[in-house]
Amino acid sequence: MASITVLGSGSWGTALSIVLADNGHDVLLWGRSKKAADEINSSHTNEKYLPGITLPESITATIDLEKAVGHGDTLLFVVPTKAMRAVLKEVNGLLDRPVMMIHASKGIEPDTYLRVSQIIEEEVPAEKRRAVVVLSGPSHAEEVSLRQPTTVTSSSLNTEAAEEVQDLFMNQHFRVYTNPDLTGVEIGGSLKNIIAIGAGMTSGLGYGDNAKAALMTRGLAEIARLGMKLGANPLTFAGLSGLGDLIVTCTSVHSRNWRAGNMIGKGQSIDEVLNEMGMVVEGIRTTKAAYQLAGREEVDMPITKGLYDVLFNDKPPHEAVEELMGRVRKREVEDLKLGESDPLNDFEP
Amino acid sequence: MASITVLGSGSWGTALSIVLADNGHDVLLWGRSKKAADEINSSHTNEKYLPGITLPESITATIDLEKAVGHGDTLLFVVPTKAMRAVLKEVNGLLDRPVMMIHASKGIEPDTYLRVSQIIEEEVPAEKRRAVVVLSGPSHAEEVSLRQPTTVTSSSLNTEAAEEVQDLFMNQHFRVYTNPDLTGVEIGGSLKNIIAIGAGMTSGLGYGDNAKAALMTRGLAEIARLGMKLGANPLTFAGLSGLGDLIVTCTSVHSRNWRAGNMIGKGQSIDEVLNEMGMVVEGIRTTKAAYQLAGREEVDMPITKGLYDVLFNDKPPHEAVEELMGRVRKREVEDLKLGESDPLNDFEP
Repeated sequence: MASITVLGSGSWGTALSIVLADNGHDVLLWGRSKKAADEINSSHTNEKYLPGITLPESITATIDLEKAVGHGDTLLFVVPTKAMRAVLKEVNGLLDRPVMMIHASKGIEPDTYLRVSQIIEEEVPAEKRRAVVVLSGPSHAEEVSLRQPTTVTSSSLNTEAAEEVQDLFMNQHFRVYTNPDLTGVEIGGSLKNIIAIGAGMTSGLGYGDNAKAALMTRGLAEIARLGMKLGANPLTFAGLSGLGDLIVTCTSVHSRNWRAGNMIGKGQSIDEVLNEMGMVVEGIRTTKAAYQLAGREEVDMPITKGLYDVLFNDKPPHEAVEELMGRVRKREVEDLKLGESDPLNDFEP
Repeated sequence: MASITVLGSGSWGTALSIVLADNGHDVLLWGRSKKAADEINSSHTNEKYLPGITLPESITATIDLEKAVGHGDTLLFVVPTKAMRAVLKEVNGLLDRPVMMIHASKGIEPDTYLRVSQIIEEEVPAEKRRAVVVLSGPSHAEEVSLRQPTTVTSSSLNTEAAEEVQDLFMNQHFRVYTNPDLTGVEIGGSLKNIIAIGAGMTSGLGYGDNAKAALMTRGLAEIARLGMKLGANPLTFAGLSGLGDLIVTCTSVHSRNWRAGNMIGKGQSIDEVLNEMGMVVEGIRTTKAAYQLAGREEVDMPITKGLYDVLFNDKPPHEAVEELMGRVRKREVEDLKLGESDPLNDFEP
């Protein structure tokens, strides 16, 4: 049994707390809302984020970050990417010992192009972290909280740490695989949100399943192209944290990114959408970061570029989608040879 | 403008006839039903298979196979895999010249393990065929008939023939890519039906999106494993006729294979399901063929095996799915190196 602090009491942080509590761990859940913490401690619910779910009584909540950081030797970060640096700075100021740092956030930071594990490494000096591990994969929080079968990937440059995290979370309903390709796992989990916005947008514009499947296929190919340029293993993108997560996010109306894209496709402005949803839509910032990164790495990412123009340059969604669908005919795989340095780059959109 | 005969007046044959007619070709649609042919010729509809759609008047229909075979220099076969040999034998008896042979059927023949293009080569001597081309990809017939954007792959060992077929079909709504990997395109298009039955079954049993995404991800990995053993390019499975088609078939209630699996998951017997649907469910025969083929090739295909046991050995669906979800923990990618002969084989389910 371990003592684990979960930082972030949204739907995913709360659902992962349930998994850890089910496995007998001592879970302290930290968040900024006193109302939410009181509700978790007194009635064992988090109605705003996981309506209808009763939490195990062994989950307690606090808004006291010092207490949270002092609770145990493992910190699980489940805060929006945008808030990650601020939380890390606070945590770092309170840390007096090396701890295991796990994160389950999905995004790339605009302008710095950093993945979340890299942000952790920047904000927390090496002597205060035993290892950095990401947990990623196809996982609606609602289903996890209902103990529906779910499979995810635990990834770290430190294989033993990835296996330690696998042991913490693994149970009958929640299956954890390990993958040493940290770059690929983080890129796949982050960039699928871009494609989810695009999939929602095509649906909002009235396109059907054939178009959505084409967009997702081409989308995964361009994610893999960028990932490989950054040193990722292309097979990671065919795994749970690539293809698997893409499927869940693009084909479910539960997905915030899909819903945001859907509303934009139906003609709402981005500001209207964000106001109406009142939730973080990670894919919007990630679109900007991936667009910048594609430019720096000179990787062709037509779907990301099209969405960037819609989100940041006021391009009408139907124009962007029509451009994507109407590209000249191409060979799908141009004399691909396995063993070349960059075979997925030969996928032509 | 070409004269093209479409053999098979079901939903997909009729939808492809619309694409060809839109492109100005002279289309003769052959089927066994006199009633359907009369309906197409007189009222330009095919209500049983494409309800509510008005066909272009340039599409004519016949039940006279001799007339159909004599119509032009291109034959497009869109008949169920089970019926393919019988139709090919009849066509061969009537053919007196070499023609282009295209097929858009999806399945593997049990016991012989042959793909459809191989069945064509077996039944029609080389001097009567200019080339054999397959058209495959994520494409609900209903959406194609509504001119919704759709992208598919044209594949042949003869690259010029694949491009010729691309030219025949390509238009503003229907985008055609070429891919020289005939084996991969046919294996991907056929075996995704197995995974679709499995996806329907998990939904029928009450599992959620997380489980479906995991099943699809692991399913594509095992399809790719078998395909590579048979000489296919692994990247084909990440393309339209692999991943793309898998997405459309597994995530849409339109899919017959998904619906069949869903009913089985809810407790109906296979005979009941087939009687109720009254339509061909390609995935059932293909499950048998793929199971046999996996044995011969010594490829690990746990999802195919689980479904085979449900469909042919009376195994209760919930037992098969629980076994699949509860396998021991593994590394997702075991020291994968691109350039090895069989990297996808290292995916552990």
